[in-house]
Amino acid sequence: MNVQDFKWKQNITVKELVEQYQSVGYQSVELAKAAEVFVKMKKSSAKIYLTFTSNMVTSGLRGFFAQLISLGMADIIVTTVGGIEEDIMKATGEKFKIGDFHSDDVELHEKGVNRVGNLFVNNESYMNFEDWVTPVLTNLYEKQKRWAVSELLREIGLLLNDENSFLYQSAKNNVPVFCPAITDGAFGFHLYLFQQKHSDFIVDVVKDFGNILFSSSHDEKKAVVALGGSISKHHAILCTLLNGGAEYAVYMTTAHKTSGSMSGATTDEAKSWGKVKDDSDVATVIGDVTIMFPIAMIKALEELSVEGLLRNV
Amino acid sequence: MNVQDFKWKQNITVKELVEQYQSVGYQSVELAKAAEVFVKMKKSSAKIYLTFTSNMVTSGLRGFFAQLISLGMADIIVTTVGGIEEDIMKATGEKFKIGDFHSDDVELHEKGVNRVGNLFVNNESYMNFEDWVTPVLTNLYEKQKRWAVSELLREIGLLLNDENSFLYQSAKNNVPVFCPAITDGAFGFHLYLFQQKHSDFIVDVVKDFGNILFSSSHDEKKAVVALGGSISKHHAILCTLLNGGAEYAVYMTTAHKTSGSMSGATTDEAKSWGKVKDDSDVATVIGDVTIMFPIAMIKALEELSVEGLLRNV
Amino acid sequence: MNVQDFKWKQNITVKELVEQYQSVGYQSVELAKAAEVFVKMKKSSAKIYLTFTSNMVTSGLRGFFAQLISLGMADIIVTTVGGIEEDIMKATGEKFKIGDFHSDDVELHEKGVNRVGNLFVNNESYMNFEDWVTPVLTNLYEKQKRWAVSELLREIGLLLNDENSFLYQSAKNNVPVFCPAITDGAFGFHLYLFQQKHSDFIVDVVKDFGNILFSSSHDEKKAVVALGGSISKHHAILCTLLNGGAEYAVYMTTAHKTSGSMSGATTDEAKSWGKVKDDSDVATVIGDVTIMFPIAMIKALEELSVEGLLRNV
Amino acid sequence: MNVQDFKWKQNITVKELVEQYQSVGYQSVELAKAAEVFVKMKKSSAKIYLTFTSNMVTSGLRGFFAQLISLGMADIIVTTVGGIEEDIMKATGEKFKIGDFHSDDVELHEKGVNRVGNLFVNNESYMNFEDWVTPVLTNLYEKQKRWAVSELLREIGLLLNDENSFLYQSAKNNVPVFCPAITDGAFGFHLYLFQQKHSDFIVDVVKDFGNILFSSSHDEKKAVVALGGSISKHHAILCTLLNGGAEYAVYMTTAHKTSGSMSGATTDEAKSWGKVKDDSDVATVIGDVTIMFPIAMIKALEELSVEGLLRNV
Repeated sequence: MNVQDFKWKQNITVKELVEQYQSVGYQSVELAKAAEVFVKMKKSSAKIYLTFTSNMVTSGLRGFFAQLISLGMADIIVTTVGGIEEDIMKATGEKFKIGDFHSDDVELHEKGVNRVGNLFVNNESYMNFEDWVTPVLTNLYEKQKRWAVSELLREIGLLLNDENSFLYQSAKNNVPVFCPAITDGAFGFHLYLFQQKHSDFIVDVVKDFGNILFSSSHDEKKAVVALGGSISKHHAILCTLLNGGAEYAVYMTTAHKTSGSMSGATTDEAKSWGKVKDDSDVATVIGDVTIMFPIAMIKALEELSVEGLLRNV
Repeated sequence: MNVQDFKWKQNITVKELVEQYQSVGYQSVELAKAAEVFVKMKKSSAKIYLTFTSNMVTSGLRGFFAQLISLGMADIIVTTVGGIEEDIMKATGEKFKIGDFHSDDVELHEKGVNRVGNLFVNNESYMNFEDWVTPVLTNLYEKQKRWAVSELLREIGLLLNDENSFLYQSAKNNVPVFCPAITDGAFGFHLYLFQQKHSDFIVDVVKDFGNILFSSSHDEKKAVVALGGSISKHHAILCTLLNGGAEYAVYMTTAHKTSGSMSGATTDEAKSWGKVKDDSDVATVIGDVTIMFPIAMIKALEELSVEGLLRNV
Repeated sequence: MNVQDFKWKQNITVKELVEQYQSVGYQSVELAKAAEVFVKMKKSSAKIYLTFTSNMVTSGLRGFFAQLISLGMADIIVTTVGGIEEDIMKATGEKFKIGDFHSDDVELHEKGVNRVGNLFVNNESYMNFEDWVTPVLTNLYEKQKRWAVSELLREIGLLLNDENSFLYQSAKNNVPVFCPAITDGAFGFHLYLFQQKHSDFIVDVVKDFGNILFSSSHDEKKAVVALGGSISKHHAILCTLLNGGAEYAVYMTTAHKTSGSMSGATTDEAKSWGKVKDDSDVATVIGDVTIMFPIAMIKALEELSVEGLLRNV
Repeated sequence: MNVQDFKWKQNITVKELVEQYQSVGYQSVELAKAAEVFVKMKKSSAKIYLTFTSNMVTSGLRGFFAQLISLGMADIIVTTVGGIEEDIMKATGEKFKIGDFHSDDVELHEKGVNRVGNLFVNNESYMNFEDWVTPVLTNLYEKQKRWAVSELLREIGLLLNDENSFLYQSAKNNVPVFCPAITDGAFGFHLYLFQQKHSDFIVDVVKDFGNILFSSSHDEKKAVVALGGSISKHHAILCTLLNGGAEYAVYMTTAHKTSGSMSGATTDEAKSWGKVKDDSDVATVIGDVTIMFPIAMIKALEELSVEGLLRNV
């Protein structure tokens, strides 16, 4: 394909934008390719593992994740515990604010404000979360003493009546949510306090490994959509690998491969899984997920909705 | 402003996308802010310095730059010489190809292909450029012996009858094009060969410093839109500084400020120029320009066209 | 302090190098500051939380971590499960190879080689790990059925007779090792297989939250040395926060703060914890940990050894 | 080679550090390789093009560049005009300060301080530079009216009696200094003011293209050591290419190749020049130059001095 001159026309849609990206160059080409891989994975009925780090739930992408689950674009979710906490906070009415990367952190501290990049979360939201979570744990404990993480999160999702909550949409649409480090956050602290009073209360992470392992099979096609790095990305790759490898993969991240970190690992490695047939089934796009993911996914949604492949449209 | 849940709706436009970005978080917020600064600079009739590195002309952004000049969104252009060469190549019919970041470079070399990221330029295009440029220099030399760079580039622009050429649109719309390192490319080699035969042929870079200095005045409002880093960015900042500083600035780059380089310098420094009134007049967006610049600028163009502030729509 | 001209002299030591870095500029200044913070935290008898991601254990830094534990420069370790697995592999005789970032991944796959950046790990090493871990789990299960992660890792460390193993040195020197996502790797798979046969085998992550919480107290001084990002960094920060915040912090990473990720969060935020007195107690250094961490830490070790503040020298 | 456990020993030298880096992993391996390429290029008597951006002259690396020229480790210099200006400022007694990346830029502006990353340059230094440069231009103009840039810089170097000045050491050791964008800085402004009074004063950039072209020949071996990106890197690559390509190349930069920029282009492309025999002759190291370059170069200097291959030791 030749490089084509990009041109604006009035009322240009996101779909038309991404069509032009195909022939612009650099990361815009990779983004357009990611959109195509999204379409391919859905058309081939692959099981889609969608992974994201907690900072994306802090951001407004949280509602988009919920929508994607509802539309049938995600079959398994993997995230970190901060994402669980903040989804609950938002579902129970807490508001996060658009702030500034260059804030005076000492001043924010005095005001009881936590900064995540250019977003602000009040200490009060954490306190309200505590008030919400303690009775929930009591109720769940009354049902059973030993919980796999994803089973616990399903119960919590059912309590959240918010269509923009990914936990709610997951529970409603039978999409399991995995969180391999469930104690690494305020939620972990509350679990600990609860266990202090109820020593037979068990969060069974080992059992949940089986759950994610059986969330797809060797015979099914599998796809990994990894937003950001960290263990959410690693966990999905690990589990698809144990099931023979994914056929499709899209990674979006700001990390680079030069440090040897998982966060920066590219889809090149996917070829070494032995199941990816060729380069047209994988894409790595370097840049900010809040900008890139909506664009690429919207392009795919527009195509898939025309073909009637989306649920609940 | 509160963080808002992002939602797709069918046929969403780029304008609507960026409106949602305002309340998503991280770089999407900065991108939405960049769009607002573009609108502000145009509404206030600031002289707009648009700077870009040559790899952006290799890409399809080249046609967008030409369109922006035509629309009146750029009053002064600063770029590197590779951008000049490739604009001419494209205007004279050369085609560049979408390739791959992970190509076999030895094989490409044997095929006479040059790689710029994931874009391919044939050696033949450079040879055709040589055939084109030599008679042009002869004609210009017959007009006069001593040329300021921007005056030379204006003459060249008038020879290119291609509405997607930024040199053509610049010449046609009286937008000067500055290139502070005119010899740093194939064009430099051809200038050198020409001077070998005509020792009184002079490319006067010092005179052109005066030209860019007088391209705006202390009294006028000024804006810098810097895409990528390098001397194109530095030159525009330097010249606006000598005229009292810019009122508006948008920087888009993948570089970070931690290395102390100009490419990574942010608009924070713009505050130190003493003329920026507040943070709402500057934006630094980190990421790939081929993705981010069209989106932010399109949002501004949609607004400005409604208000009748664009030329030639 | 003025910028000073850097000069080489024959047989220059690392200590002398870092002394010059103080007055060179950019990240070299931050690195020299990190060395000073290491000295301060040790002199003030702070509890030192050393966190690292698994790719650093893949690299030769693994032996350095073991040495630092032995010397008394780390009181609590937090890492990811890949680091646990690879420390065991190396301690049981597996060799990893220096490879290439640009390897042919399909070819590597056919040879049974896994690539981590420019390092190679054979599939065979994972199989040998499996052979080693299964009887170990059987023995531990015979001791007790329910294990907190750090208690399990301590037992494993005692089995590894390798002074270059961080698990061994940790166990020997009563340094707890925390791993908040113990199932996110091959080890998780083996735990799962074991639990299939022994359903009352429990890995208690909630109990371990209490263990890390009580690894230091409000009254003690605390320091966080975070190499790379991910949950290992986050977990140490979280736990020191719950104990009133750390007095000292050094972060080394390739990630930038612009994406709002934990990996890229800087020590600026440490000021918002309310206990850091001033900027001289924190340092964020941007770059590759394998280069930067040894240099900064060696500078500190040279000073601390002279003052007799290191153990086992 | 196997990955080896890194270990500190007391009074470890930089040479011993880099020897260990060879078997640590990630960028430390690339840095050790860069040291080897430095040794190879000198042993093979290649013409060494050393390029650096102006921010490195702002830093203390400036004195190291001067030392390297004196030792015979650089045969041709390419830099940007800011580097020229600041070398002169330092040679004429100006002091730059170690500051902070997170300074209050508005406050700095009011104090007349310019910030370059975490380094501070006073406005006064620029004023003193102006006082120094004007009579120098007058004297040079009396000698001749038309100057190639490198010839002008040689004359200036001879006026600076400072062994830590790279302009001085270059002039003294017959090392030409090229600066393809000589007007892109305060120096450009002074050249312009001077030309206003003396219209026949010409800075001939085209002639200087011939000078750099003949600074090496097709038959000589050539090496490019590029620190940072920008036109200084590009110019050296261009000129060695026109002479058949370099046999050796070391690039050190914080930029990544994913944006298609020259700053992020790696030495992989060097293979496409057709002269690099194998991977052992090139190295790309990602990270901060102020940390990495001294270490890698010192390792090479220690080896080369033992073999008597350095000048003036």
